[in-house]
Amino acid sequence: MKLFNYFRSSASFRVRIALALKGLRYDYIAVHLAKGEHKLSAYADVSADQMVPLLELDDGTRLSQSMAIIEYLDESHPEPPLLPRDALGRARVRALAQSIACEIHPLNNLRVLKYLSKEMAVDDDTKNIWYRHWVRTGLESFERQLTLLPSSIFCYGDTPTLADCCLVPQIFNGQRFNTPLDGLPRTMAAFEACMALPAFQQAQPSACPDNED
Amino acid sequence: MKLFNYFRSSASFRVRIALALKGLRYDYIAVHLAKGEHKLSAYADVSADQMVPLLELDDGTRLSQSMAIIEYLDESHPEPPLLPRDALGRARVRALAQSIACEIHPLNNLRVLKYLSKEMAVDDDTKNIWYRHWVRTGLESFERQLTLLPSSIFCYGDTPTLADCCLVPQIFNGQRFNTPLDGLPRTMAAFEACMALPAFQQAQPSACPDNED
Repeated sequence: MKLFNYFRSSASFRVRIALALKGLRYDYIAVHLAKGEHKLSAYADVSADQMVPLLELDDGTRLSQSMAIIEYLDESHPEPPLLPRDALGRARVRALAQSIACEIHPLNNLRVLKYLSKEMAVDDDTKNIWYRHWVRTGLESFERQLTLLPSSIFCYGDTPTLADCCLVPQIFNGQRFNTPLDGLPRTMAAFEACMALPAFQQAQPSACPDNED
Repeated sequence: MKLFNYFRSSASFRVRIALALKGLRYDYIAVHLAKGEHKLSAYADVSADQMVPLLELDDGTRLSQSMAIIEYLDESHPEPPLLPRDALGRARVRALAQSIACEIHPLNNLRVLKYLSKEMAVDDDTKNIWYRHWVRTGLESFERQLTLLPSSIFCYGDTPTLADCCLVPQIFNGQRFNTPLDGLPRTMAAFEACMALPAFQQAQPSACPDNED
């Protein structure tokens, strides 16, 4: 398999975690988002949505959208499972994952920040306040959801799931923009539990071949 | 079942479509987003994320996040299926759905538009350009993805799927803000095919009890 991705892309990071948890090997193909490599025609030939991550299977099939990719990996390589075995558990995990992937991350990714700066001439302070606002309010909502669930080591249960694959990159991004992360005990406990695992360590931006930090 | 929702909420509309396609009856509980009813403490007691839609099952279990709810409904009421039977087909449908739910809709929902107006003092013209930019570029990407798939009546295959549940509300929203929808033949053909079905007609905002249009 080949993973077209970028060290700092949160959605790429999600898929790297899933691949590492499953113990799946892949070729790391760097697409430098900040330099706009995803917008070049060479990448348009690979990716219909010109986004990362994109997973190319060994037969050449190309998959897009991080959560769809992880669900596919979970179906095609069931161990260890990244979704619970019961329908309600799956609904809980998917809702947690989507709380990040649909409510927080889309507002803060690179193309949106670029639009705010370039098209709307928003200054850096206002942009950073925007960034932290959506991360903080989104994580507060995430925390409220966790507190309704039984106590657990990870976001849901005692093994990592799709929800953890989404949470960890979001915390990394929040930290990068100095978002306050106090008062989120369940959320940060799940984050710490994840970061104690080699799979999350291997997948993090600083471990990527295109890391620039 | 009870569906806490709002006639104009795109995510609510997705779930209404799924419920209608499955032929499932539910009590319609209106939560007036524009009046801020979702932020009242009465609703906080119901919904941890204070968002709509929220589906309350007959046993009192409450489910959030539209795509997670639809996947749950598809697992608990398998006919007619809203996801293909093969893993690759499911990956395709989920990616299409997420292209809308993670790339377009989050940038344009009510809370974001309110933030632009109130917190950033963005004028209406700039806000409308923002809105149309993300809908248009997102749908162009969606169209490119459809053109790589075999020809079909709906977004994927010849029956409606999760992707159609997401597409139709997005087109309604785009039309409401006068977004140009030309040059999207596959996308608009799928939309028209959906709107020819009673389930999509019944679920649309104008058919909702809290409709104000």
